Amino acid sequence: MFSNTWNLKLLFLTLLSLQTGPESCRSCAMSFIKVDEKSDFPIQNLPYGVFSTPDNPRHRIGIAIGDQILDLSVIKTLFTGPLLSQHQDVFDKPTLNAFMGLGHAAWSEVRSVLQKLLSADEPTLRDDISLRSRAFVHQSLAEMHLPADIGDYTDFYSSLDHATNVGIMFRGKDNALMPNWLHLPVGYHGRASSVVISGTPIRRPLGQMRPDDAKPPVFGPCKLLDMELEMAFFVGPGNPLGEPIPVHKAHEHIFGMVLMNDWSARDIQKWEYVPLGPFLAKNFGTTISPWVVPMAALMPFVQPNPAQEPTPLPYLSHEDQYTFDINLFVSLKGESMKEAAVLCKSNFKHMYWTMKQQLAHHTTSGCNVRPGDLLASGTISGPNPESFGSMLELSWRGTKNIDLGNGQTRKFLQDGDEVIITGYCQNKEYRIGFGECKGKVLPALPY
Amino acid sequence: MFSNTWNLKLLFLTLLSLQTGPESCRSCAMSFIKVDEKSDFPIQNLPYGVFSTPDNPRHRIGIAIGDQILDLSVIKTLFTGPLLSQHQDVFDKPTLNAFMGLGHAAWSEVRSVLQKLLSADEPTLRDDISLRSRAFVHQSLAEMHLPADIGDYTDFYSSLDHATNVGIMFRGKDNALMPNWLHLPVGYHGRASSVVISGTPIRRPLGQMRPDDAKPPVFGPCKLLDMELEMAFFVGPGNPLGEPIPVHKAHEHIFGMVLMNDWSARDIQKWEYVPLGPFLAKNFGTTISPWVVPMAALMPFVQPNPAQEPTPLPYLSHEDQYTFDINLFVSLKGESMKEAAVLCKSNFKHMYWTMKQQLAHHTTSGCNVRPGDLLASGTISGPNPESFGSMLELSWRGTKNIDLGNGQTRKFLQDGDEVIITGYCQNKEYRIGFGECKGKVLPALPY
Repeated sequence: MFSNTWNLKLLFLTLLSLQTGPESCRSCAMSFIKVDEKSDFPIQNLPYGVFSTPDNPRHRIGIAIGDQILDLSVIKTLFTGPLLSQHQDVFDKPTLNAFMGLGHAAWSEVRSVLQKLLSADEPTLRDDISLRSRAFVHQSLAEMHLPADIGDYTDFYSSLDHATNVGIMFRGKDNALMPNWLHLPVGYHGRASSVVISGTPIRRPLGQMRPDDAKPPVFGPCKLLDMELEMAFFVGPGNPLGEPIPVHKAHEHIFGMVLMNDWSARDIQKWEYVPLGPFLAKNFGTTISPWVVPMAALMPFVQPNPAQEPTPLPYLSHEDQYTFDINLFVSLKGESMKEAAVLCKSNFKHMYWTMKQQLAHHTTSGCNVRPGDLLASGTISGPNPESFGSMLELSWRGTKNIDLGNGQTRKFLQDGDEVIITGYCQNKEYRIGFGECKGKVLPALPY
Repeated sequence: MFSNTWNLKLLFLTLLSLQTGPESCRSCAMSFIKVDEKSDFPIQNLPYGVFSTPDNPRHRIGIAIGDQILDLSVIKTLFTGPLLSQHQDVFDKPTLNAFMGLGHAAWSEVRSVLQKLLSADEPTLRDDISLRSRAFVHQSLAEMHLPADIGDYTDFYSSLDHATNVGIMFRGKDNALMPNWLHLPVGYHGRASSVVISGTPIRRPLGQMRPDDAKPPVFGPCKLLDMELEMAFFVGPGNPLGEPIPVHKAHEHIFGMVLMNDWSARDIQKWEYVPLGPFLAKNFGTTISPWVVPMAALMPFVQPNPAQEPTPLPYLSHEDQYTFDINLFVSLKGESMKEAAVLCKSNFKHMYWTMKQQLAHHTTSGCNVRPGDLLASGTISGPNPESFGSMLELSWRGTKNIDLGNGQTRKFLQDGDEVIITGYCQNKEYRIGFGECKGKVLPALPY
């Protein structure tokens, strides 16, 4: 199945990992696994993902620590706490859905066990060379997969700057925001089947467009292919049909977050979206990053919520902070470019509606959510032009070039362009990062 | 687990079934199972469903014949044809997804085997009393379940009369149809989690509405609760992401059809739907009938497609007939009514866009569909007022009462109202029916 070269690489990386004792942990005093200062994955993060390796194609659940993955299926019997001792089998599953469904108390228990197991002064894993060699996989050797079976995917539209920008472009400054926008988190149902893991190439879609209103519509490759900088959260425990999740309980149902690129075909969208919303303009691919960062890792980066005026109705009101300071970056690397150029720098704190408000609103009708459902933010634009989260905004509807340096410009995406989204929270001690959310544009199929 | 009364009932019905030999098949010369002339389920139908019984709560796949269910998990070893002999395990699954994914040739093979096994002159099942007692279940003893894990649910808007009616109400006669409507089958992504099986009660949703534009929005129970008469088809084999299904191959991917009630909260919808389409107004429940009627059973009722002007673009064009003559009925039974009153009589032949066009359009972006995905027609209204498929149209936006007889009237649905959709194709020899798609409105939760 796999080559000798690969076997040697595996051996080398395993030995390297085994050599890493507490004495070599220079940049991190807390884990016996070496974690670089700029790593996305210190012991304070511990995001969950699903991976496989060339020697074992089974999809397993792991957590990222430094440049390693700790395979939870290998160490499942170490979860001996009151909740997890009854549910160790969740780490034998090929997705995180069952673990997500266990709920907050179980997640806390697992996180405590993992932080203890990985700490520099805990011998259980650190000193068991045999167990370590089985339990750790170098990230470069792993293939990542979708972390969950996504039953339903919902996309919100919760950035005031994005909604305003798009509104100005299409309806003018005086009618930029629709009347409902400040009263509820506008959202719509997206396509779950085409949510793909980072690295999956995205085929430029074919579709029906009407570039000239005076002529009939035409069929062909999308010409205005765009990215959208988003984040999304996975739902933990669900609710029964007909029983809303109140806003003060929403946090208990939010498992963790990923980065997202909501690829968009602007010319298809413009023609199709009235009156039922975006459809084919969005359903040809939605890319997410593979590591689900738990809310517990993000709570140290919470900050005051944005002022909301008018005051939301009681079912949407919450006093506690649920806005997060997450730095976000979008880069683009064209085929002829030596390195990626930054397209956009934004921050998740620019969101107007919180994730609690989104989830409470979504279920207020009685709509049932299920473990593994994905709820996305909508494009995250900030107030400054460099923070605009889509090329539609960055090129202001294609009226100006986006400068990528070295003579490279774009208005929309070209074939071969790779879009890379990254993001992290940072304080004086550590960084909580999300890894990469990337995808490359393939040319349209002949038609 | 179950009572003696139930055991006696089971014994009685089993004995009744066993007594039914070919000589007692009065109204049907073709099966040894007695099939009433007005039954939805003659041997020419053989729809697939998923059921359980009080004595065996496991979800199993069965087909309906007369008032019986033939349990395919019990007779799976009788499928010895070239395709099914390798895939008998699809009938051990708790859903139809795997069978749906096998494709057209396998479906034909199964249908041939079933029609032979059930025919009056075939002794295999007919004369094996032990096998018959294990393989048949009376429909009144079975609980029906969703026939498939629905990965994604899409709702189209393909009735010209419905789109025109709604357009006139909201935008006036001159702007009734949106400019794109005659060029493509408009559709949107719906909510898969809240698709429920016939009989599931539907809780009146809470939500944000703005009944008076001059005042702020309010929160409370939906006041304009509606039904929508629809049909939907299940997808068979899927397509890989990025590879559209051409219109001339669409039929190979269409497994069969069900009835659907797309419950709608008109007041929530009116306020929320701009610009991203219906969301909470639709996601609190979508009811489908339990028996999936295979396309092979419907093909004898195919008829010429409606004239489409302007001619659709080539990717949407097909010459072969794919419009079906299916009589549809909606009845309503209020809590104080002795029997249900007919609300609407329509026909699936009124659809402007065919299911082939819907599926080809849906995947033209490269969007991947998967076995068990559900694609719905949109409200099926015909040209006459009695054929309007929603109370929005029947009461013309609440401007007139719908007369139910015996002094009962409605504009929209009241708590306790049960909505029952039925439908069938009829020729001189037999009827291909769909069973019932019904649901009762529960009062809103306190808030």
